[in-house]
Amino acid sequence: MKSWTVNATQEVSYDVRQTDRVLDPGNRDLARAAALHPGARRLVVVDRQVWQLYGPDVRAYFRHQRVDARYVALPTDEPNKTVESVYAVVDAADAAGLNRRSDPIIAIGGGVLTDVVGLAASLYRRGIPFIRVPTTLIGLVDAAVGVKTAINHHSHKNRLGTYFPAATTLLDQSFLRTLPTRHVANGLAEIVKIALVRDRVLFDLLADRAADVVELVKHGGVGGEIIERAVGGMLAELAPNLWEQELRRLVDFGHTFSPGFELNADHPLLHGEAVAVDMVLCCLIAQGRGLLSEDEVRRVVRLLRLIGLPVTTSGVTPDQLVRCLEDATRHRDGHQHLPLPQGLGHGVFVEDVTPEEIHRAHRSWVALDRLREVA
Amino acid sequence: MKSWTVNATQEVSYDVRQTDRVLDPGNRDLARAAALHPGARRLVVVDRQVWQLYGPDVRAYFRHQRVDARYVALPTDEPNKTVESVYAVVDAADAAGLNRRSDPIIAIGGGVLTDVVGLAASLYRRGIPFIRVPTTLIGLVDAAVGVKTAINHHSHKNRLGTYFPAATTLLDQSFLRTLPTRHVANGLAEIVKIALVRDRVLFDLLADRAADVVELVKHGGVGGEIIERAVGGMLAELAPNLWEQELRRLVDFGHTFSPGFELNADHPLLHGEAVAVDMVLCCLIAQGRGLLSEDEVRRVVRLLRLIGLPVTTSGVTPDQLVRCLEDATRHRDGHQHLPLPQGLGHGVFVEDVTPEEIHRAHRSWVALDRLREVA
Ligand SMILES: NC(=O)c1ccc[n+]([C@@H]2O[C@H](COP(=O)([O-])OP(=O)(O)OC[C@H]3O[C@@H](n4cnc5c(N)ncnc54)[C@H](O)[C@@H]3O)[C@@H](O)[C@H]2O)c1
Ligand SMILES: NC(=O)c1ccc[n+]([C@@H]2O[C@H](COP(=O)([O-])OP(=O)(O)OC[C@H]3O[C@@H](n4cnc5c(N)ncnc54)[C@H](O)[C@@H]3O)[C@@H](O)[C@H]2O)c1
Repeated sequence: MKSWTVNATQEVSYDVRQTDRVLDPGNRDLARAAALHPGARRLVVVDRQVWQLYGPDVRAYFRHQRVDARYVALPTDEPNKTVESVYAVVDAADAAGLNRRSDPIIAIGGGVLTDVVGLAASLYRRGIPFIRVPTTLIGLVDAAVGVKTAINHHSHKNRLGTYFPAATTLLDQSFLRTLPTRHVANGLAEIVKIALVRDRVLFDLLADRAADVVELVKHGGVGGEIIERAVGGMLAELAPNLWEQELRRLVDFGHTFSPGFELNADHPLLHGEAVAVDMVLCCLIAQGRGLLSEDEVRRVVRLLRLIGLPVTTSGVTPDQLVRCLEDATRHRDGHQHLPLPQGLGHGVFVEDVTPEEIHRAHRSWVALDRLREVA
Repeated sequence: MKSWTVNATQEVSYDVRQTDRVLDPGNRDLARAAALHPGARRLVVVDRQVWQLYGPDVRAYFRHQRVDARYVALPTDEPNKTVESVYAVVDAADAAGLNRRSDPIIAIGGGVLTDVVGLAASLYRRGIPFIRVPTTLIGLVDAAVGVKTAINHHSHKNRLGTYFPAATTLLDQSFLRTLPTRHVANGLAEIVKIALVRDRVLFDLLADRAADVVELVKHGGVGGEIIERAVGGMLAELAPNLWEQELRRLVDFGHTFSPGFELNADHPLLHGEAVAVDMVLCCLIAQGRGLLSEDEVRRVVRLLRLIGLPVTTSGVTPDQLVRCLEDATRHRDGHQHLPLPQGLGHGVFVEDVTPEEIHRAHRSWVALDRLREVA
């Protein structure tokens, strides 16, 4: 009886690069990243909303490069984050007759769009290259800087996906000018997350300008510094663990209970909003364990509220929270690996959160809302 | 404007192991590979036909290990090689509540089954482990020894897929006893392929026993040697190029025109049958270029016919063949990279096959059928 062992190594390398006004015909960054040249066939997949706002600029850019571009505008709400959207990209790739290695797909949009196009690119002929241009804050600091792609399945957020890097991601903050405030706040939740688990300086930057931070990130200056720190911190966490071999991930802070809130039919939250709510709950658990002081928790809650993020959500029972933790535990292969802040700007993992602790945190959490109503 | 480069390395390692009567409760190979232990939750996905033949043995094996096993029997004809079948596996994984890293899915069946389960395993939570037990000859020597997973999309074979190794593959030749002769012949086509491009000894083994080789691989002996050489040759070709960074692949011999035959609505062929037809066409192109002698081509045709494989297929026009080559060229990033045998047992790549050559080969190819009718 013979046996064989196959050993192999895959090298992965990708770039994340800041740029300004990426669609300005004079800006060569996208042309370089996507190897544009006269007559080149390119499939450009754009968020439908972004297409309405920037469609003429997108067209003008590719026309200027004399590229034979086909455009697909995809609806990108969560209910459309499905295999049908993946198929829309795949069918367009078929129709365009893309070469397998030299005709990258260009994805322009928020996290839903880049997740869907990323999954399509990774599956199509088992992987063709793609380029990301995020247009939301979540995209700029999170969804478009890592290698995870995904679609939802039934009530499960991101249940199906791959690890597949975009060759290049171009970060252009100027898209944020048209992003609705609620979505800017949504992205700030991920920035607060990074700050809380690994960057005290970033937390202070945010807390000092809490009242106008939404406007700041829309318009550069300190906002630019905040985004740059957030991207740097995110990549520092992701890069050594691209394929999540290590399931203890600080970037999972805020992502344990949040999937339950996000697809909650009664009161759906945006991804970052759900993360904000989860972070508050986790801060209360951390407080119960003496990892955070009452004052520190208060500072976090204050920051999130000034940003305009929710800190609780109605109608969630403690038992639902326990089930969320159980599902996350399965996702972390039977371990809680629950990231909690220990002080502001440093994270630790705990493995033994009990249902009682969750019930207790839930009580303080509900009380936060009552406090607000009284105030 | 800041920029970041992420560099990372993924190490991949997997085992392919021969075993005998893998479902015998006394055989511990599967128990070891799938880390079976009393009370362990395991999802076992089985080809529907295999389930009818071996269902009781499968159940008895897991019962003997006191595993909490859930079974899914999937229909596995090509029209069912779709995302719906992937979803059937995903839904069963959800229902079983599998842990992400320690509860491997066990796939038992032919190439369709292992391709579909492999894709599901690679997508579910972005990858959970799986174990393969191929039950067809194609599975034993090809589909279940590499890392490619796939489903069909529209009329495109394997258009969507991933590279995702099974942790362990257990090769048990005894399944072949129940495999219909047509499917044994089908698998032999892939063995002939490996022989033609890299193993003269294997070619001679096959040619010497051509008339009873189908029976031989069903029952061990020389058949076992043939399978072992085929697996060894296949892995030697695949292992240095798991992710197909190199698009010049000798194992693509017979796989340039075959996708067109396989999904041909009028006269559908099995995968290996289509490969056999493609190999003959390619041998004729090779002959036209002086890479094979007329006698060598005759030996190949004789071997395939004795195995019971088709060597031509009706109703295919030269123009369709040209289009097949164009599609393969796109898949090979704009290069033909057409593998052809140079002598028996050695392969080379050509890049400049013309439509005229294809027309000429097509004429000789059609003549093969007429020869037969006359004989
Ligand atoms: N892959 C990852 O690592 C990762 C990380 C975090 C989040 N995500 C995923 O990202 C998604 C959330 O991303 P998102 O917050 O960007 O949501 P989104 O993609 O739904 O975009 C938010 C809204 O803004 C619109 N929009 C986008 N850019 C705009 C612009 N410049 N101006 C005006 N409107 C614009 C969109 O049409 C949409 O309505 C979730 O599905 C989440 O699972 C993925
Ligand atoms: N992933 C790869 O690298 C790779 C390589 C080659 C082929 N493939 C794919 O594999 C598929 C072909 O595989 P296949 O030839 O195994 O086809 P298959 O999976 O369709 O199986 C052939 C038939 O045999 C039946 N069967 C399976 N085991 C049996 C047994 N022991 N006894 C009796 N009947 C049995 C099946 O129900 C089916 O009807 C194609 O879809 C092809 O694309 C994949």
